Amino acid sequence: MSLTRTSLLASRTTRSLLSRRIPHHGTFKQLQRRCISLQALDANQNGRERVVVVGSGWAGYSLARDLDHSKYQIVVVSPRSYFVFTPLLASTSVGTLEFRTALEPIRSRRTKVEFFQAWADRVDFHSKTLTIEEAVEDPWQGRSLVSDRHADASPNQRAQEKQLEVKKGELFDVKWDKLIIALGCYNQTFGTQGVKENAFFLKDVGDARRIRNRLLSCFETAALPTTSEAMRKQLLNFAVVGGGPTGIEFSAEMHDLIGEDMKRIYPDLVKYAKITVYDVAPTVLSMFDEKLSKFAMNHFKREGIDIKTSHHVEELRKGSPVAVQQESNISEADDSCYTIKLKEEGEIGIGMCVWSTGLMVNPFVQKALDGKVKRDEKTGGIMTNERLQVKDSEDKGLVPNVYALGDCAVLEGTAYPATAQVASQKANWLAKRFNKGDIERSKFTYKDLGVMAYVGNSNAILQSSGTDISGRVAWFLWRSAYLAKSVSWRNRILIPVYWAVNWLFGRDVSRF
Amino acid sequence: MSLTRTSLLASRTTRSLLSRRIPHHGTFKQLQRRCISLQALDANQNGRERVVVVGSGWAGYSLARDLDHSKYQIVVVSPRSYFVFTPLLASTSVGTLEFRTALEPIRSRRTKVEFFQAWADRVDFHSKTLTIEEAVEDPWQGRSLVSDRHADASPNQRAQEKQLEVKKGELFDVKWDKLIIALGCYNQTFGTQGVKENAFFLKDVGDARRIRNRLLSCFETAALPTTSEAMRKQLLNFAVVGGGPTGIEFSAEMHDLIGEDMKRIYPDLVKYAKITVYDVAPTVLSMFDEKLSKFAMNHFKREGIDIKTSHHVEELRKGSPVAVQQESNISEADDSCYTIKLKEEGEIGIGMCVWSTGLMVNPFVQKALDGKVKRDEKTGGIMTNERLQVKDSEDKGLVPNVYALGDCAVLEGTAYPATAQVASQKANWLAKRFNKGDIERSKFTYKDLGVMAYVGNSNAILQSSGTDISGRVAWFLWRSAYLAKSVSWRNRILIPVYWAVNWLFGRDVSRF
Repeated sequence: MSLTRTSLLASRTTRSLLSRRIPHHGTFKQLQRRCISLQALDANQNGRERVVVVGSGWAGYSLARDLDHSKYQIVVVSPRSYFVFTPLLASTSVGTLEFRTALEPIRSRRTKVEFFQAWADRVDFHSKTLTIEEAVEDPWQGRSLVSDRHADASPNQRAQEKQLEVKKGELFDVKWDKLIIALGCYNQTFGTQGVKENAFFLKDVGDARRIRNRLLSCFETAALPTTSEAMRKQLLNFAVVGGGPTGIEFSAEMHDLIGEDMKRIYPDLVKYAKITVYDVAPTVLSMFDEKLSKFAMNHFKREGIDIKTSHHVEELRKGSPVAVQQESNISEADDSCYTIKLKEEGEIGIGMCVWSTGLMVNPFVQKALDGKVKRDEKTGGIMTNERLQVKDSEDKGLVPNVYALGDCAVLEGTAYPATAQVASQKANWLAKRFNKGDIERSKFTYKDLGVMAYVGNSNAILQSSGTDISGRVAWFLWRSAYLAKSVSWRNRILIPVYWAVNWLFGRDVSRF
Repeated sequence: MSLTRTSLLASRTTRSLLSRRIPHHGTFKQLQRRCISLQALDANQNGRERVVVVGSGWAGYSLARDLDHSKYQIVVVSPRSYFVFTPLLASTSVGTLEFRTALEPIRSRRTKVEFFQAWADRVDFHSKTLTIEEAVEDPWQGRSLVSDRHADASPNQRAQEKQLEVKKGELFDVKWDKLIIALGCYNQTFGTQGVKENAFFLKDVGDARRIRNRLLSCFETAALPTTSEAMRKQLLNFAVVGGGPTGIEFSAEMHDLIGEDMKRIYPDLVKYAKITVYDVAPTVLSMFDEKLSKFAMNHFKREGIDIKTSHHVEELRKGSPVAVQQESNISEADDSCYTIKLKEEGEIGIGMCVWSTGLMVNPFVQKALDGKVKRDEKTGGIMTNERLQVKDSEDKGLVPNVYALGDCAVLEGTAYPATAQVASQKANWLAKRFNKGDIERSKFTYKDLGVMAYVGNSNAILQSSGTDISGRVAWFLWRSAYLAKSVSWRNRILIPVYWAVNWLFGRDVSRF
């Protein structure tokens, strides 16, 4: 049986001591009941090894899908009920595609995985036990994270929370034969003041929905007669921080939305619209050849998108800049817009700041694995060998049967980027090894298949094994590649339908 | 110029007296700025009469679409940025269709209406002025309403709010030549304790999204090992209150979801699932012939959906029934499920209660129009003559140039039902009269085109001009009729694509 009876009984006792709301009788009866599902998990195992996969991104989801179900019982643990096809997220955030076309549910008629919608909380390598915390009603569902969800709780509070085991976030244990850690990273805000609270991120589908709603409500607010000219300018001034592919593709998609749809829907307002991309680095799209990144920058220039490199964001807050407040008689209390403060330019009033720069180590890696595994000094990621096996904290050997991949892992001695491509290649490789049982005979190597980015107005850039392509042809290849890469036939049908429908009739601007 | 300068100046003055946050200089400058958009509205009028349409449902949206733009300047005022095609809402609430296929944005490339996303707040029939309150950032966006959004504010507070004119909910005035009141009704809870707070309604797209998420999270919570057998039974026990077409169609769609998808995705859980429809009346679907309503009831019986007529809901609250708490050792504090209390059966633990019974008079009609127009004694609706012209409060004549239609209006001497069919027929008739300028020469009469309802498992019932059809053929006609009725070509393409995709691959169960 997978549940550690003693620990559960212990915490139950603590619970009745701490809370008078719990009836005192029947504790053991309840305990029996609460084990049923894990017993069912054990009963379902049928002699197969159990692989517990933590995370449902490019690494975890791909691995779970590729593993042979006749050989392994696969248990996915993730706070999200779906996998996000991240390359299409920017398209969904402006309505070029509908949100669900970028999603694959972990549970579906076809997949044969067991799934617990839960957070990984603690891990015990000796007893091969993962303690997980249910997350079905998690209020942050669908949003990417910037800080530990327990960040505001003191360590004492947190310990008490764990013992209390309240229904929201109840803990339970799952045993593994093999553990796969693939829970990704959080958004990095570099401690910049106000970013955590006020920026819009773009890593999960809930983020995309927030952006779509905000973008449209900026236009709708600007259309009100109660909105002053000065406020209008601020509301329709959009800042994107981060000149990587995500930031660039989002800017391009937003520019398409404004140029193709907003222009016709709000003809009087489109003159106020402005997009600026900020980056601390001296160039954007640094993973591309200079020729291609120049193409992108020139294309942006022609379309009127400003790229400001070597710029540093110091603060992001609600409300207008002080100077604008005074000049245009805007109330200090009016928080319709945001103010971004740049080291180089001072305060600027904006309608929205989309923040897509940098990754932060996952709090689970930071806290639950600290002192148990070797971690990369620079990124804080979990260090693995070339078989993706996790190294122990003293770097003397390996943690047996524990693997790490995706953005939370670093393959020792390499500098592979934290991309979907690396994550899914690792997942495919590991699944193949598990299925064949030949992991000792080979090593993972990354094969760079190239990079692509959409730059707007049906143009893209593409670089693969020495070939550089830019323009419409690259855009056609961009669309074809992602359509082909889409996981399900469902989405392979829906995506081109939405492309066609939105091209014919325009994007939907209903907001809810 | 449309803005009443004096009133605005007056309230501005009050504002600076009340709030020290507002800088004292530049009030007039700001005033000028704030008028720009209304000046633009005036400039755009080009000698046309201005028709202000309050509401964007079946009545308001249809009218605005049908009016001749060369003759009238049409201004739509609604807190929603879209029209909801209500017959498909039940399908979207379980994922048979995607939410946006039941929506039409008020603004689109094609429509030529002016739009303010705002609430109607006050009306002055003498000066022909409507005071409206902006609602772009309304937190209840997409949800249907059960009580006045200012219900918790005292009249004094409310008066102060109006004077303060805070940015969130700023007021402004629009003048009309013709005013159309078509702002519909709220949900009626008959004062039943806890319904307002705990029930799930189904009148708007946000409601549909809440239901879809809740339905799926009930299954996901039930799948957790920490969930007891007793809780599982409660979570998957669904109550629908109201045996009208909406309640019946929703039950049927939910039954399809469970029988077609949940059965495969949660094979161990489907045995717990149960749907019960409650109604105070002795029969359901009373608008249908006895033969058809019997067909529906027998069909439901075969499918295992209970219909309990002559049942009275007394309370709806969070948590399990007391008896279940004691018997199964469930904590009083555990609010994973709800308890519905029936006069006839006592307390029952349920996962969700969908409430679709009865309409409540709109607070705008109740408050802003009280004493200004004649109102129906029974429903509280606005009384109109057979030309949809609003009667004055003393029943001596008409309020000039003011019309009312949709669920908020009652045509004197008739008992037309509060349906989409009546609303859209009135809208079409009124638009035609306005376009031809011949309203004095004709009268509106309602032509009952019949009723349809989907009853699940590809069966429907249909009754039209003496013909009764039930079963698959009726279902085919049901789908064809609503597809044909869909407003935009966009949705006419997307709807059959979703029907096909979901039939082939199953409904999407991603939750965000």
